[in-house]
Amino acid sequence: MSVYAAETDSRAEEDAEPPARTEHDVPRVDFDTGSGRYRHWRLDVDGEVATVTLSVDQDGGLVPGYELKMNSYDLGVDIELYDIVQRLRFEHPGVKSVVMTGGLERNFCAGANIRMLAQSSHGWKVNFCKFTNETRNGIEDATANSGQTWIAAVNGTAAGGGYELALACEQIVLIDDGSSAVSLPEIPLLGVLPGTGGLTRVVDKRHVRKDRADVFATKSEGFRGATAVEWGLADATVPRARFADEIARRAREAAAGSQRPDGASGVTLTPLEREESGDTISYPHVSAALDRAARRADITVHAPDGAPPEDEAGVLEQGAAYWPLAMTRALDDLILRLRTNEPEIGTWVLRTHGDADTVLAYDAQLGELAGDWFVNEIRHYYKRTLKRLDVTSRSLVAVIEPGSCFAGLLLDLALAADRQYMLEGVYEDVDPEAEPASIVLSGSNDGAWPMSNDLSRLASRFWGHDEDLARVRARTGERLDAAAATELGLVTMALDDIDFEDELRIVLEERASLSPDALTGMEANHRFVGPETLETKIFGRLTAWQNWIFNRPNASGPEGALRRFGTGRKGDYDVKRV
Amino acid sequence: MSVYAAETDSRAEEDAEPPARTEHDVPRVDFDTGSGRYRHWRLDVDGEVATVTLSVDQDGGLVPGYELKMNSYDLGVDIELYDIVQRLRFEHPGVKSVVMTGGLERNFCAGANIRMLAQSSHGWKVNFCKFTNETRNGIEDATANSGQTWIAAVNGTAAGGGYELALACEQIVLIDDGSSAVSLPEIPLLGVLPGTGGLTRVVDKRHVRKDRADVFATKSEGFRGATAVEWGLADATVPRARFADEIARRAREAAAGSQRPDGASGVTLTPLEREESGDTISYPHVSAALDRAARRADITVHAPDGAPPEDEAGVLEQGAAYWPLAMTRALDDLILRLRTNEPEIGTWVLRTHGDADTVLAYDAQLGELAGDWFVNEIRHYYKRTLKRLDVTSRSLVAVIEPGSCFAGLLLDLALAADRQYMLEGVYEDVDPEAEPASIVLSGSNDGAWPMSNDLSRLASRFWGHDEDLARVRARTGERLDAAAATELGLVTMALDDIDFEDELRIVLEERASLSPDALTGMEANHRFVGPETLETKIFGRLTAWQNWIFNRPNASGPEGALRRFGTGRKGDYDVKRV
Repeated sequence: MSVYAAETDSRAEEDAEPPARTEHDVPRVDFDTGSGRYRHWRLDVDGEVATVTLSVDQDGGLVPGYELKMNSYDLGVDIELYDIVQRLRFEHPGVKSVVMTGGLERNFCAGANIRMLAQSSHGWKVNFCKFTNETRNGIEDATANSGQTWIAAVNGTAAGGGYELALACEQIVLIDDGSSAVSLPEIPLLGVLPGTGGLTRVVDKRHVRKDRADVFATKSEGFRGATAVEWGLADATVPRARFADEIARRAREAAAGSQRPDGASGVTLTPLEREESGDTISYPHVSAALDRAARRADITVHAPDGAPPEDEAGVLEQGAAYWPLAMTRALDDLILRLRTNEPEIGTWVLRTHGDADTVLAYDAQLGELAGDWFVNEIRHYYKRTLKRLDVTSRSLVAVIEPGSCFAGLLLDLALAADRQYMLEGVYEDVDPEAEPASIVLSGSNDGAWPMSNDLSRLASRFWGHDEDLARVRARTGERLDAAAATELGLVTMALDDIDFEDELRIVLEERASLSPDALTGMEANHRFVGPETLETKIFGRLTAWQNWIFNRPNASGPEGALRRFGTGRKGDYDVKRV
Repeated sequence: MSVYAAETDSRAEEDAEPPARTEHDVPRVDFDTGSGRYRHWRLDVDGEVATVTLSVDQDGGLVPGYELKMNSYDLGVDIELYDIVQRLRFEHPGVKSVVMTGGLERNFCAGANIRMLAQSSHGWKVNFCKFTNETRNGIEDATANSGQTWIAAVNGTAAGGGYELALACEQIVLIDDGSSAVSLPEIPLLGVLPGTGGLTRVVDKRHVRKDRADVFATKSEGFRGATAVEWGLADATVPRARFADEIARRAREAAAGSQRPDGASGVTLTPLEREESGDTISYPHVSAALDRAARRADITVHAPDGAPPEDEAGVLEQGAAYWPLAMTRALDDLILRLRTNEPEIGTWVLRTHGDADTVLAYDAQLGELAGDWFVNEIRHYYKRTLKRLDVTSRSLVAVIEPGSCFAGLLLDLALAADRQYMLEGVYEDVDPEAEPASIVLSGSNDGAWPMSNDLSRLASRFWGHDEDLARVRARTGERLDAAAATELGLVTMALDDIDFEDELRIVLEERASLSPDALTGMEANHRFVGPETLETKIFGRLTAWQNWIFNRPNASGPEGALRRFGTGRKGDYDVKRV
């Protein structure tokens, strides 16, 4: 299925969903980029303050068919932003506040490119929005946990996704020039929602009153300075003459409150060592084998080869090669690639391989050195990568076998899965002398990697069963064999080798036979029990409604507003309320 | 648009959405029913315990085209259940526990009728599910707030919506007969979700572990007794020989803990006095005028005519004629009728008319007599009716004018609205001597009618602004004119009569020009700030995903599982994960 329909393709004019195409039509998206390679952003670091400037190259769209006018973006622009957010955290320990601003005349950012959206398949739109959401959550995570406060210097109009980008920043300062405004014009102009956090952040983060939020989100031109500030849509509005000074003052003030170190050296995020053949993707510590016929990926995370370095200095010296970081980067890249490039691979089987004690030694070190800026970054990066897994619309099945090392931080991979299957004993035919599989809980499973609902995966698993949770916690550090893991409720099923492979085969075949859409909906409901947060609301409520709307003729049908945008004709709506 | 497509309509085989039909094809749904008129349920009251038995008349479908086999239900069956829940609360003060059971051999309930779903339009499905959800929430509300504990006596198979019905009960007792099971077969058999609370209640109410919930919701045959109990899907399983005794024991035990009075006389819910012409619907205290061209309903709630009765006895004597109850019943009925029968009426303008002091006298009485069983029922019924408004996919605009009485409980109608417009001063041309509009807060606005997020509409409005909330609370009891209401943030906009009507006209015209789907999504996101609960998760996350899936070809397309069910052919899925 193509991600876009060429303008000359008349079929695409008739169907909301472009017709199926052969596989080679899919642009394979690459998430690798880096300083010096950005086409749409500029990163300037001046002491404690970094400035991130958006000047979209309108000819630099990721796929053909649209021009990125007026600082509008597509996935390619967002991939660069994600890279910048990551590099600021790892490569620039001295940066304590980040100013995001627009580099085009009177234009902060116009949001997602509408022609791009109009010509994209439903799946592409959904996946694009998910990545965009994750990047914005990453900006908030940097502000909250990394001592890098993001400030939106809105020096021109911020419309739609452009304003949503500003909403992800801790502060929004809007230029007072008589014309620049903040707006969410999606509903009046396109018949879709401000769906990458907009509606949720306006009421739940910025606490704009519901009735005002309603007026704002239906007013295509939005609001300029004074009203924007009065309503809470911006924190301040400043005339052009004082704008730069005020931004600099706020950036300095934010930097002064940062816990980031002075004089530390950054860690360069070296290019990923990734090898791809047709059906395998492998990195030093992570590998994936794709079974296209079965529509399944077998993903294995490998334990580190040796003991962790002695201390902070040793960790820093290893830099990007330090196992927890290298493993996380590989896993992150793999998740993104499989999500975007392999939509038909519906089930991911998660395995680990290697020495559990070595994994636990690294796990312990991440805890002991949590106060170190670099280790802190790794911890939060691993947390975000697990969160990415949580919102991935693929069925996740963990397989725990002899030789696996689901211990400490790697056990959270199993807990993130929809199901956990564990071999009881050993594969008698393969290695009767092997040590039977075990899992090991560490303190890190109990809070170091919270989900979007702010609970650990362990607490989510035992939500409503405090006694069971206490029993499990009491076994922290023990090697739990299949019987113990089953008894404690840590695995779905444990079987001996006579039944294990058959059962697993049946489970995976059954999974592949179910409606992919129903699975997506089910998993999105099961994975987030208990409390909801801004993030779960964005991925649950807001995203689900947006996906519904993206699928409705009023938006994406041939007479829909999204498809008609720019033609001079408004959307022709089915007026029934549903 | 028809709610169903006749089997001979070949166009319906080609499109997920049946083709548009003329308006007279729409069956106008009537929600009036009552004891002695039930076709599908039997209500037996035996002292403190009521038994509600489902024996669906398979020829009693609400619309032609399907047979309600195996105790499956459609909207008509659910309308009767809703009526039973209501009458048990008002007409049977002595009933302290309610047993729900199946009246057909080995069949508790098979859930929503699949042929009905398959032939229904998207809008009909969504509206049907919403009402079903509300009725189930009402069962939980009766258990929590009315001293009527519902117990599901699952004496046969409970599948899909049938099990979801049981999930709404406080206890689930499953017969142990070697064959009866509880199951959620929607995903494997139909490619849709158990979308009327099922997924949410399994993990968030019954606290079934995520991985087990995943196994359960993908296993069409479900689980019988022992496993169902072990996994938390049922509370007990009992052999046939002891089943009736065990149910009776549990019902007595639940009744013993009830706060309901002994020896009280019930209040008969007399037939509603509703008058309808083509464009008006009126009840003694509520009226609606429909402007079909503008796609707008003007709804007016009228104040009571005179002072409230002296005391409990006087209130009870008035019974169904007691203004708060009569007004609530009318409003409830109107909401249901407009939602179901008038999908093109996209905006509801909410007005009140009458003496605010009289309204406040009733409001005070509802507070003073809250301990009385009958007043308690009225309070919770009004709360539920406001909640129904909150989840209604219509734009709600409150208009506050001279002669209006948005005071106390009626002020919550304005707070439920998406926007509030208030006239400053009077209509000089109409009645220059009139008293200018005012609104009055009472204590009831601060907690008596919580939303699904467990916050009052006032607390929701000022979420994140505690000081503003405190300022507003300090003005409780005062008549707040337009200036004061604006200053306190209680209205969206106040205008004098020179601008008021023009502004309102423009607002309503603009609203009518927007995409109905985008408005539904926006309102669903704006109306529920702050904490989420089981209810908001059901209406937000679960419902939104289900609506998305209902719109996808994998479910509702000609090769979708829902449409193909019963043909012997499985759904033919687009295997891409989105």
